[in-house]
Amino acid sequence: MPNELRKDPLFERYAIIAEARGKRPTDFALKRAPCESKPEGICYFCPGNEHLTPPEISRITEKGKKGWIVRCFPNKFPAVSRDSPRAYGYHEIIVETNKHGATLSELSTPHIKKVLDMYASRVLALHKDKKIKYVLIFKNEGEEGGASLSHTHTQLIALAQIPPVIEDEIRAQKKFKRSHKKCALCELAKKEKNSERAVYENDEFVCFAPYASRFSFETWVLPKKHIPSLAQLTEKQKLALADALKNSLGKLDKLLNRPPYNYLVHIAPARGREYMDFHFHIEICPRLARWAGFEFGSGIMINSMPPETAAKALRGTRV
Amino acid sequence: MPNELRKDPLFERYAIIAEARGKRPTDFALKRAPCESKPEGICYFCPGNEHLTPPEISRITEKGKKGWIVRCFPNKFPAVSRDSPRAYGYHEIIVETNKHGATLSELSTPHIKKVLDMYASRVLALHKDKKIKYVLIFKNEGEEGGASLSHTHTQLIALAQIPPVIEDEIRAQKKFKRSHKKCALCELAKKEKNSERAVYENDEFVCFAPYASRFSFETWVLPKKHIPSLAQLTEKQKLALADALKNSLGKLDKLLNRPPYNYLVHIAPARGREYMDFHFHIEICPRLARWAGFEFGSGIMINSMPPETAAKALRGTRV
Repeated sequence: MPNELRKDPLFERYAIIAEARGKRPTDFALKRAPCESKPEGICYFCPGNEHLTPPEISRITEKGKKGWIVRCFPNKFPAVSRDSPRAYGYHEIIVETNKHGATLSELSTPHIKKVLDMYASRVLALHKDKKIKYVLIFKNEGEEGGASLSHTHTQLIALAQIPPVIEDEIRAQKKFKRSHKKCALCELAKKEKNSERAVYENDEFVCFAPYASRFSFETWVLPKKHIPSLAQLTEKQKLALADALKNSLGKLDKLLNRPPYNYLVHIAPARGREYMDFHFHIEICPRLARWAGFEFGSGIMINSMPPETAAKALRGTRV
Repeated sequence: MPNELRKDPLFERYAIIAEARGKRPTDFALKRAPCESKPEGICYFCPGNEHLTPPEISRITEKGKKGWIVRCFPNKFPAVSRDSPRAYGYHEIIVETNKHGATLSELSTPHIKKVLDMYASRVLALHKDKKIKYVLIFKNEGEEGGASLSHTHTQLIALAQIPPVIEDEIRAQKKFKRSHKKCALCELAKKEKNSERAVYENDEFVCFAPYASRFSFETWVLPKKHIPSLAQLTEKQKLALADALKNSLGKLDKLLNRPPYNYLVHIAPARGREYMDFHFHIEICPRLARWAGFEFGSGIMINSMPPETAAKALRGTRV
């Protein structure tokens, strides 16, 4: 296809889809050079090393078994803290499994649901601090994804302001609602579920490559029903979300040889009128290319993998 | 210092300054691992290989000498082109010197001025196409800076729209002007010239680390007088800009062992009412850390080097 500048139908996000000629989806698979796999020392996130992390906040255990399967504690090097009046907040780590070396997609669906239970309970707990306006949940996977420790984990950063990316999203959702009397993301779920960008679907969630994908193989996990945040998910929906994550991440892991990625959990702000209008979703952003001068200088991303081609390859990948 | 969330005084840009305890400025210097210096094949940008690039657009020569010292040609793999109706534009390469391996800061001030002459003449030429709304000039230096070829060069991408980053900047400059009846960046130049964030100064330009630096050692090169774009620079001012670039980049190269960076040349749009209000400047963004989930998910950057500390170290670095 000829190059194409695309604007997201909803947000002020732009991407130039510049297909690399003759490059197949599998050509994006990670080829790990020997010098990139560094020797690992002691793992701070493994069972037995709990004393090396700051004091535990919470853990999830399995009936009849010793030890934890999901564990939450404060980040040792926090970006924000209750002691920083000018950068107030909380910075926590959620270790998703006691198994070193496993990726999130390799865990069982019920186990991933437990991870989501931990997300939900931490968000509720942090919302009790009235100074907290937003809880950002994200995952850095792989060295190029910004993970400094390889044992699979999620980070939570609770902030005393709504961050700019979420402000922009709320603004765009409001604007759409004013003119269409509908939720933009409810409409998007209906549309993408049957589009050529669809990747996976279950009863409650649709996974798709967004039209103006900024990252090659970018995949969104979007509830079909209007759900503002993690707290509104029923047990059944949480299990469906675990299944959607397992499948969309599993397809990426298999097709692209465990690529580095960030995933961003977009939930409603802690409170306020925006809360109910917000449509919860997760954005999975593989980190296969480097942002450079053009991206930083323009705010427009160059993506060499058309989302339609990415979605087709992911749909065809069995996990 | 305790962590601090800073908002840019002018733009909607945020950074959490989270000083890494006990880390000195020189600890940020690049330690090049042996496996990172890949063997290089033929250089497409070297003299003698002109036939390997698309047909030349323009060159600058030296009196009485053979060959070119600065050379401009179309990018072989353009992000935008006149043949892409849905991604219209021009994508050009400016090779800054015929010397393979030199960095921009190692060129003489008169030579850097010639590079700026090329920038200015290409911008004027591209503005003649009435479809072009903005010419983005940027430089990717080093592998982590996104350079795919190591021979020092600049890229120009001319677009049929004003990119979001520049739209935001115009909006912020307008807002400031409405309430203060002054240009925001004229005021900023006066303020930063004597601040603890000042890095270097000559008659026409001030170089400083911005208050809400998103990148460690981020440095702006700002004209003291109100200048919208490259076309308004006098010969004397262009020489002063070359001197400011040579010094600010030279200090970074020396202090941090030729770090990877992007620089972004912020010029006025091609035409329109915004043109005269725009205040030209260059943003130098060293790429010493990786943006990850928090940065993408929030739009807030985490920077572990306070700009005041960075500026002090850069001021003290002799070039």
